[in-house]
Amino acid sequence: MKPAFKEIPGSIVAPRGFLAGGVFCDIKRLGTGKGSDKGRKRDLALIVSETPAAAAGMFTTNQVCAAPVKVCIERVRRGAAQAIVANSGNANACTGPRGLRDAKAMAQIAARELNVSAENVLVASTGRIGVTLPMENVERGILKAAKTLGNTTIHAQQAIEAIMTSDTRPKQIGVEFQVGGKPARIGGICKGAGMIQPGMSATGRRPAALPLHATMLCFITTDAAIDAKVLQAALNEAVAQSFNRITVDGDMSTNDTVLALANGRAENRRFGVRSSEFAIFQAALDHVCLALARMIVRDGEGVHRVVTVRLAGAKTAAEAEAAARAVANSPLVKTSWHGGDANWGRIMDALGHSPARIAEEKVDIGYSAPGSRKIVWSLKRGRPARAPFLRLCAAVAPLEFDLHIRLNHGRAESVIYAADLTEDYVAFNKGDVTDPTSLGG
Amino acid sequence: MKPAFKEIPGSIVAPRGFLAGGVFCDIKRLGTGKGSDKGRKRDLALIVSETPAAAAGMFTTNQVCAAPVKVCIERVRRGAAQAIVANSGNANACTGPRGLRDAKAMAQIAARELNVSAENVLVASTGRIGVTLPMENVERGILKAAKTLGNTTIHAQQAIEAIMTSDTRPKQIGVEFQVGGKPARIGGICKGAGMIQPGMSATGRRPAALPLHATMLCFITTDAAIDAKVLQAALNEAVAQSFNRITVDGDMSTNDTVLALANGRAENRRFGVRSSEFAIFQAALDHVCLALARMIVRDGEGVHRVVTVRLAGAKTAAEAEAAARAVANSPLVKTSWHGGDANWGRIMDALGHSPARIAEEKVDIGYSAPGSRKIVWSLKRGRPARAPFLRLCAAVAPLEFDLHIRLNHGRAESVIYAADLTEDYVAFNKGDVTDPTSLGG
Repeated sequence: MKPAFKEIPGSIVAPRGFLAGGVFCDIKRLGTGKGSDKGRKRDLALIVSETPAAAAGMFTTNQVCAAPVKVCIERVRRGAAQAIVANSGNANACTGPRGLRDAKAMAQIAARELNVSAENVLVASTGRIGVTLPMENVERGILKAAKTLGNTTIHAQQAIEAIMTSDTRPKQIGVEFQVGGKPARIGGICKGAGMIQPGMSATGRRPAALPLHATMLCFITTDAAIDAKVLQAALNEAVAQSFNRITVDGDMSTNDTVLALANGRAENRRFGVRSSEFAIFQAALDHVCLALARMIVRDGEGVHRVVTVRLAGAKTAAEAEAAARAVANSPLVKTSWHGGDANWGRIMDALGHSPARIAEEKVDIGYSAPGSRKIVWSLKRGRPARAPFLRLCAAVAPLEFDLHIRLNHGRAESVIYAADLTEDYVAFNKGDVTDPTSLGG
Repeated sequence: MKPAFKEIPGSIVAPRGFLAGGVFCDIKRLGTGKGSDKGRKRDLALIVSETPAAAAGMFTTNQVCAAPVKVCIERVRRGAAQAIVANSGNANACTGPRGLRDAKAMAQIAARELNVSAENVLVASTGRIGVTLPMENVERGILKAAKTLGNTTIHAQQAIEAIMTSDTRPKQIGVEFQVGGKPARIGGICKGAGMIQPGMSATGRRPAALPLHATMLCFITTDAAIDAKVLQAALNEAVAQSFNRITVDGDMSTNDTVLALANGRAENRRFGVRSSEFAIFQAALDHVCLALARMIVRDGEGVHRVVTVRLAGAKTAAEAEAAARAVANSPLVKTSWHGGDANWGRIMDALGHSPARIAEEKVDIGYSAPGSRKIVWSLKRGRPARAPFLRLCAAVAPLEFDLHIRLNHGRAESVIYAADLTEDYVAFNKGDVTDPTSLGG
């Protein structure tokens, strides 16, 4: 079936009525923060709708939750916003009451410069934990960014660069589709790299069923006319099937945030969650979120191979999830992926110590190209399959492949987008102890 | 307080009436398995009591449970045994009905050669998963080992070598103490290295409270006169405080086994679980198990630094356990230990996504020398402490240190013996894919 949307350039400024910008203001305080942006990695982004927009969000369920996340949870609940101010280099997490004041002040300064209500400005941060924000630099950055806003691809690129931390590549996507009689657009940008196994909810509270495990930030803009509650419903579903299904290292960050703004400039007829228009919008949003989520895994710290774990035949959905995550987060399984080793013994071991019920003699394990149904089986019903050794090696040699696990005693399924564990991950994360500012996340 | 025991040499042959031996019989089938043991790593061990002994055991709670574990669970339940036959190079796991027949045949052959009842022989295996045992080689090995049994330190060393896999050092201990009016001894040997986060129980079934996470094998001998049930009670407690509290990589093996044989040759008065004699025996057994467990962490695959996570002030014991394990198994925390980085941000992040309830503004984090109460605090009540950066660096520089975490809102505590995550771990475990026999664990 042909999807009801097509990809377009422009990401967050593809939808009508959105402006973006990103500047360098030295959030890490390496120098004075003054002077030109040239040759310096930008660290402060603004995303602005020309008119007030419906807002929705999903937030880390980590109990240690950064100040900007607390501010956003409160503000998104009102269902309206007009701007996002975000910085990299400092997470504003574990910063106490001062941190909360700083996050609100960041929004306040942006509101003043953009001439919008302070309540309508959302805030996001990523970077070091436990260090208070250099508010003079932040203020200087917001002033500069507000003056440089625009709706070209270059402006979007500057915003992307400003939220990147250990990311090596910009992550962006835009789609266009017909909804309620009009062409509408969704654009998204994100950052990821380390501390990646998001488990987000709309309230920051952890639902019983939610997995326990990035800093990842994602900002989505759309010109669709959609009520905040409908937007939130679509975002819940899209995040559940994308960002909440990825893992780089199994660590959930204090700052994970997805924000979506919908300014209605497409002037489509508004729709409810049971309409066919909703299904079209949902499909487009799902595509945006899944594409961005997969870019995060692909560009995870030290990641060489990306593996989609497709688990089927579990007794319950919770068990399918638990079994898939046990495999996806097992250091021994992840190092075997790095080594290009079709090691089913380690997969069986991980399944066996997961909370899911499994019957050893029923388990199938196999490999395919991404999305393909042509599976090379290494294990069938708990016994080594007859696939030649070299075919198995070939199946796990590509930089991306699917791992198929069938427990064969139930109907529940789960998909987890996972990555290998490499020497590069360790080398990157062991850090630079000669730098006192490296203390923190 | 002076302990009621002293360390002695001889490990498993230190207690009277025990014999040991280890030979090479080429379990990995790299050659013919014939010829001299000289220059070859031994791979089959025998441990024998001259007289029938009381027996106790603790076994992996992994649902994918190796054939020898299944055999031992059945036999230990009877409370009696006289010999242990163990091999490295092949785990006899995921080997179906054939594997179960092979494990029993291994015991049968040993029984015949040693002239004891087959039911009184226990079996243990470690090595590759999913490959059936080369029974001809196993038989040849048992015949050879039975002829070379002895009670010298060299015999014990040969048994230790035979169970080693990726271990780089032999792991052994012996203690002597006075109990029931007589001198008694406990000796123990073990192997570890990878797939290390045991969660063992006496039945192989997982108690609700038990953590979900080595191949580790441990064999304990004692000449104390003790009833099997009393021995099992002491072993439950000793393992709960030692092997079940270590983690190298968070993966629980299919083969984890601790076996204890007590032949009564000390001729002490028998004692019950509420006696002062039991307390003395327990203290000695605790020391043996904890010393061996710590040797496993110290010699874990690629391990550079050993960190004892001492968590206090949790609301419940289960939460203390969960919080300590979340920290001990976080790749970001473990890589920071490798880097000698006193990174409290990553520790807070791990605590925050653990199932334990925590209040950010109450948490203390600090470091000390192993077992010392002189703590350098990096975080006090959720805020960076005033310790100079260089003092913190010095605190995490040694190859062993204690990490103190106080949640300060309850009375429950937990200790986990953990290790760093290094490039060497990844390099070792990514495996050698040019070797078809490397498939499996």
